[in-house]
Amino acid sequence: MAHKNPSPAVDIIIEMVDRPDRPIILIERLNPPYGWAIPGGFMDYGEPAETTARREAMEEIGLAVDLVELLQVYSDPKRDARQHTVSLVYIATAKGEPTAGDDAKNAKIVNVWELPNNLCFDHDRILHDYLQLRHYGIRPRVG
Amino acid sequence: MAHKNPSPAVDIIIEMVDRPDRPIILIERLNPPYGWAIPGGFMDYGEPAETTARREAMEEIGLAVDLVELLQVYSDPKRDARQHTVSLVYIATAKGEPTAGDDAKNAKIVNVWELPNNLCFDHDRILHDYLQLRHYGIRPRVG
Repeated sequence: MAHKNPSPAVDIIIEMVDRPDRPIILIERLNPPYGWAIPGGFMDYGEPAETTARREAMEEIGLAVDLVELLQVYSDPKRDARQHTVSLVYIATAKGEPTAGDDAKNAKIVNVWELPNNLCFDHDRILHDYLQLRHYGIRPRVG
Repeated sequence: MAHKNPSPAVDIIIEMVDRPDRPIILIERLNPPYGWAIPGGFMDYGEPAETTARREAMEEIGLAVDLVELLQVYSDPKRDARQHTVSLVYIATAKGEPTAGDDAKNAKIVNVWELPNNLCFDHDRILHDYLQLRHYGIRPRVG
């Protein structure tokens, strides 16, 4: 097809349910843009989004995740400077010790009241939306 | 990029809020696969998903829609026999008279208790999920 498409990707907010207060996982990116982000990656052709989510979690932090729900889809063409990327953001749970691998240089477990600012892409906004849902039951609005 | 991606698309469940019982719109497709479906189409590069939803509704049924919420994302590689298509399904509202245009041969307004079976793609499943949310407040599960 000649039609040029945005590239679908999956990002995952992973709650560590074997710790107090369900902290989440951030990874330090090995490739540009450098900095901290939630784990994720591009969907492969022929791969359902849920499979992408489980695959990327295993590749980047070495943990099996259980998907809980879809938070929202983020598709602003400016959210990723590399190309137009449509991110499906899932909330998931995991247990154990994350180990950075593949595209992740480091992985850390962070309490939700200690999230850093200036995350990569639009992950500040995504985590803001996540906390609105987690704390107040308010789902992200669509435009 | 050499990476082959699934193609992101948007489908829209449009509730006619100027009629009793908020009936929804189905379109008869002009192109294969033939049959009835909810309106929708592929995202253009550089276009946010919400813009795709409004554009496709205007092109296919000639109505401006207000987006209410994202129902779910459907990404099973078998859901579209043409290619791997990731569908972002929005719920929206509209008023007025739909007029079939662009890829739609016909448009009709249908009560939710009179939905036909054997819609195109996985639109039977999508409308089942929609009715679970509309009638019982139960959101679609992720795999």
